[in-house]
Amino acid sequence: MTTNKKVTVGIDIGGTNTVFGLVDEQGNCLMQNALKTSDYPLVEDFVSTVSSQVNNLIASNPNVTVVGMGIGAPNANFYTGTIEFAPNLSWEGIVPLTKLFAAHFNFPIFLTNDANAAAIGERIYGAAKGLNDFIMVTLGTGLGSGFVVNGDLVYGHDGFAGELGHTTVELNGRQCGCGKKGCLETYASATGIVKTAKEMMPTMPDSALHKLTELTSKAIADVALQGDALALAIFDFTAEKLGFALANTVAITSPKCIVLFGGLAQSGDLILKPTKKHMEANLLKIFKNKVAIVPSQLKAADAAILGASALAWQNI
Amino acid sequence: MTTNKKVTVGIDIGGTNTVFGLVDEQGNCLMQNALKTSDYPLVEDFVSTVSSQVNNLIASNPNVTVVGMGIGAPNANFYTGTIEFAPNLSWEGIVPLTKLFAAHFNFPIFLTNDANAAAIGERIYGAAKGLNDFIMVTLGTGLGSGFVVNGDLVYGHDGFAGELGHTTVELNGRQCGCGKKGCLETYASATGIVKTAKEMMPTMPDSALHKLTELTSKAIADVALQGDALALAIFDFTAEKLGFALANTVAITSPKCIVLFGGLAQSGDLILKPTKKHMEANLLKIFKNKVAIVPSQLKAADAAILGASALAWQNI
Repeated sequence: MTTNKKVTVGIDIGGTNTVFGLVDEQGNCLMQNALKTSDYPLVEDFVSTVSSQVNNLIASNPNVTVVGMGIGAPNANFYTGTIEFAPNLSWEGIVPLTKLFAAHFNFPIFLTNDANAAAIGERIYGAAKGLNDFIMVTLGTGLGSGFVVNGDLVYGHDGFAGELGHTTVELNGRQCGCGKKGCLETYASATGIVKTAKEMMPTMPDSALHKLTELTSKAIADVALQGDALALAIFDFTAEKLGFALANTVAITSPKCIVLFGGLAQSGDLILKPTKKHMEANLLKIFKNKVAIVPSQLKAADAAILGASALAWQNI
Repeated sequence: MTTNKKVTVGIDIGGTNTVFGLVDEQGNCLMQNALKTSDYPLVEDFVSTVSSQVNNLIASNPNVTVVGMGIGAPNANFYTGTIEFAPNLSWEGIVPLTKLFAAHFNFPIFLTNDANAAAIGERIYGAAKGLNDFIMVTLGTGLGSGFVVNGDLVYGHDGFAGELGHTTVELNGRQCGCGKKGCLETYASATGIVKTAKEMMPTMPDSALHKLTELTSKAIADVALQGDALALAIFDFTAEKLGFALANTVAITSPKCIVLFGGLAQSGDLILKPTKKHMEANLLKIFKNKVAIVPSQLKAADAAILGASALAWQNI
């Protein structure tokens, strides 16, 4: 007799790619697959293709029992199970995503935004294991965040809480894609750090940054690792804005730790150390030297699927 | 046969006065009493005096059954039941307050800071009745705040969450008593508005504010109500700082409403309207026109006792 292993399905929908897989309770991604989100201008086609491929994964694992599905997606609303006006997806308006998937499966299905899914992923499998109060910050093209308070995700009354990237850190600062000015995400993100580099490069013509063929956050990090003063100054400026915003946030929710995830976070101490320094400089005394800033502990390749699958483990 | 009415004891400890009373489930304060906190340099004397007076209240109400006690106090920690390093109380260091009271009573005793107690008071009896996601802001000498998320108070990992008053709204701004600069409380509080008045008065020598014998937030409000341009500008400046901070906060917790309490909040539309205007101007599109800013609905005379008693109702 074979014992059936309980798994959840994790699906991460990005503007470019969608990845999905089966994950066990220990956070092992048993099987996964991917497709191009942008190949499916109609969400109905997308859902039926993903569903049939998920069913293939399940069928090829006779020893598993699927107990739920978690989906991470941009502009997703946990309460309503909908994706709402997502600028980076081709599906317009309000998309009833969990309802569409529910037509294909018999287990419970949960949806939230990618940063919230990442937070739950860290709590169940990663750097925030067992923590009831922490903040997840995803530093990608933009800046996403998920807040865990009293052991639960903070969704807010409408499901849209956790927009740390759009708190203002500079009055009349950089123009943000959201329409506001001075949002944290215009400074602390892959695109933000490139903007900072472009602004600061004329001040130091000797920097190795001038020799780069393409200016990316990864390339800036590589140059900084070689000790280039300008590249280091760019990281410090980025960390100053992020640390400032984090200090204000700590005063509100008093988290045990802050987990950084994404491309910029992979720069390690280059971003962690100056961010911690600037955060501490802005903290109220009772919070000083209490809040850790740590990198994600999820394997980058599986992280998105793990986060989505964790949403299912958290809610079933 | 008399039916016994369930009540909780609410105790609010302030730097100057301590008030306490018996409150039923509908938020009626059946009996109350008060004493001067500063008359008791030893916390043990304070606790035994308050306890004996509370027992007198109970004894004179034979038809009530006390089911719990809630205490609101500055620098109080819900998790540990202690008051820690409160600058406005004469009891130094860490005071095990619930333990001291527990020696006198057989019902459960809960302690939190005054702003958190006020938040629970609004949720159980007042302007936030039944709301699971809202923010309480107390505008007194300083600025206190209590956050309710998913129906529970946000204490943070250490019990000290909710320090909105010490988020930075102005880089290198006004010196705050906490040691930092530019804290919201240096602008949006009774003392903050007086500072603003002192800074702005030289610019408008014709203002009626120059005729005041004493410059208080109440006096500035009275002059503003008569249409004085400077006094109105002072309120607008105060609201600009408060609205800015609230917009950043809404992006994080997405509350259904924000309840304002305390002296400044009693100025009504003078503070509510411009605060709403400045908050909306700084909100991300998805939050616009969704978050109400409302005044407390607890009777000012009983509010502190109601808040403390509500803490007991919330936790028993």
